[in-house]
Amino acid sequence: MKILITGAAGMIGRKLTARLIADGMLADRRIASLHLQDIVPFEPPQAGFPVTSGASDLAESGIAETLAEAEPDVVFHLAGVVSGEAEADFDKGYRANLDGTRALFDAIRLRADCVPRVVYSSSIAVFGAPFPPAIPDEFQQVPLTSYGTQKLIGELLLTDYTRRGFMDGIGLRLPTICVRPGKPNLAASGFFSSIIREPLVGREAVLPVSHDVVHTHASPRSAVGFLLHAAALPSAAIGPRRNLSLPGVAVSVGEQIEALRRVAGGTAVALIREEPDPAVAAIVENWPQRFDAKRARDLGFVAETSFDDIIRVHIEDELGG
Amino acid sequence: MKILITGAAGMIGRKLTARLIADGMLADRRIASLHLQDIVPFEPPQAGFPVTSGASDLAESGIAETLAEAEPDVVFHLAGVVSGEAEADFDKGYRANLDGTRALFDAIRLRADCVPRVVYSSSIAVFGAPFPPAIPDEFQQVPLTSYGTQKLIGELLLTDYTRRGFMDGIGLRLPTICVRPGKPNLAASGFFSSIIREPLVGREAVLPVSHDVVHTHASPRSAVGFLLHAAALPSAAIGPRRNLSLPGVAVSVGEQIEALRRVAGGTAVALIREEPDPAVAAIVENWPQRFDAKRARDLGFVAETSFDDIIRVHIEDELGG
Repeated sequence: MKILITGAAGMIGRKLTARLIADGMLADRRIASLHLQDIVPFEPPQAGFPVTSGASDLAESGIAETLAEAEPDVVFHLAGVVSGEAEADFDKGYRANLDGTRALFDAIRLRADCVPRVVYSSSIAVFGAPFPPAIPDEFQQVPLTSYGTQKLIGELLLTDYTRRGFMDGIGLRLPTICVRPGKPNLAASGFFSSIIREPLVGREAVLPVSHDVVHTHASPRSAVGFLLHAAALPSAAIGPRRNLSLPGVAVSVGEQIEALRRVAGGTAVALIREEPDPAVAAIVENWPQRFDAKRARDLGFVAETSFDDIIRVHIEDELGG
Repeated sequence: MKILITGAAGMIGRKLTARLIADGMLADRRIASLHLQDIVPFEPPQAGFPVTSGASDLAESGIAETLAEAEPDVVFHLAGVVSGEAEADFDKGYRANLDGTRALFDAIRLRADCVPRVVYSSSIAVFGAPFPPAIPDEFQQVPLTSYGTQKLIGELLLTDYTRRGFMDGIGLRLPTICVRPGKPNLAASGFFSSIIREPLVGREAVLPVSHDVVHTHASPRSAVGFLLHAAALPSAAIGPRRNLSLPGVAVSVGEQIEALRRVAGGTAVALIREEPDPAVAAIVENWPQRFDAKRARDLGFVAETSFDDIIRVHIEDELGG
């Protein structure tokens, strides 16, 4: 089995790569080769099978065609510009998220013998407020950001290209990934991770919203699990609606903090400094809280069942247990 | 007020043009000029204000920019390839319906002083089966055709470009236009019109589906009314969800035939020849039947209230009363 990962240098891309190298298998087949694409150059890791990497811009003419020439069996399309950047830079967002995705899908379309499973990382940003308390699988997609618009257009192309037999696509609307490793970033959602990650290593974290804000989370390990599960699903089981809202752990910020207290004690919790930020609160208010994710659960997608577990995964995978 | 109509040589485009010329006004403002664009060349009609026409392909580099240079106050974007053609010719459909629309919206975006009301003709094809008996305004958009995919991408771009202040867009999901004037065509939906149009002039018509098929219709006159109403609506009244399912008359084929009997008598009805076509029936089964269209009704969009009225409009507008 030949595999291509776009956006492979990102956090999820790196974890997915590590898992594929550790497993040596995907969907019960031996991995023959893995190509890692990203817009930034990076060294391919060592593995028991050939791993190559290349820095390129998918939206640039000819790049996607070159990637499709290898005729991968599975493509993990993770490349893209994140929400805040797509909102700040209109042209960059449309170029990366729309033109890049379309170029990749078109390059696959134009190779008649290449009908890979394409696992596309979409986003809950395809939904826009006002929301019901839990978003059903049939809820309308009316994004309120350029990022959500671009991701949704990718979903639509994936569905149409799959229906026409050009590829075998599945789109995954990932919940917020928590606990996100690494340094705090400027994303409005950053506090969901930092109020756990920072206290666990004895550092202070700022909480800009109230304890009753509810949000849905899955660990980076679950995110990789979602991608692998999606790569292995029989196409017929997915049906004509190729994009899925995934399960996660829906908790309030207060419940996150109580989970931290259970796992790491009151000293850790004391490092959370409450500093209400009306600007962040206003952004978060427009985010969905819960998802039914019934279709995804029925298809066997599994996330953590408690926020305690999400913290434990972070401790195991990032802090050496 | 300067007006641009794309796809102006089509059936709705011609009726809209005639109405604008007759009114001399739009949204309580005097029309200063009207430019008619279509991919096929055609003569501009005479009017009390300057009317120009030009044949061009919106997807071709530089064309949309030229149209935007005139800085229209209102754009009716009707241009596009129809459903059957978009399905038969993948490249042509994406080029006309996606690239053409995006080029037009981008040309408007790049003129900072030009923030026109853009009235976009979308389609009920943005919805895909399975359907509830009546489609609510919040129903998910999961098109099952390339045409529906392309129209929905246009809706999404319109929403995002409007949110960002590049234009002031509104998208209208028109119901099936009935009675469609002119010759019978090969569209799968053609029989909805032909079983009325042909018997009214003494010609036979073929009915390929059963009497219990339910569908939603509006007259060409109502379609023009929708476009004019949309051009005049205050932007704030539309809100962030810029695309609307429009009202229409939801009737079964049997009810259509009974309306024909009431308006034109049994001799007309006797000209309908039933010739069940499983292929057409299978296509029609995947079409939506009814729409709540509550938002559109609340915004003042008005269609006929009975199929008898739809037939009478056809007799008045096409058959000289």
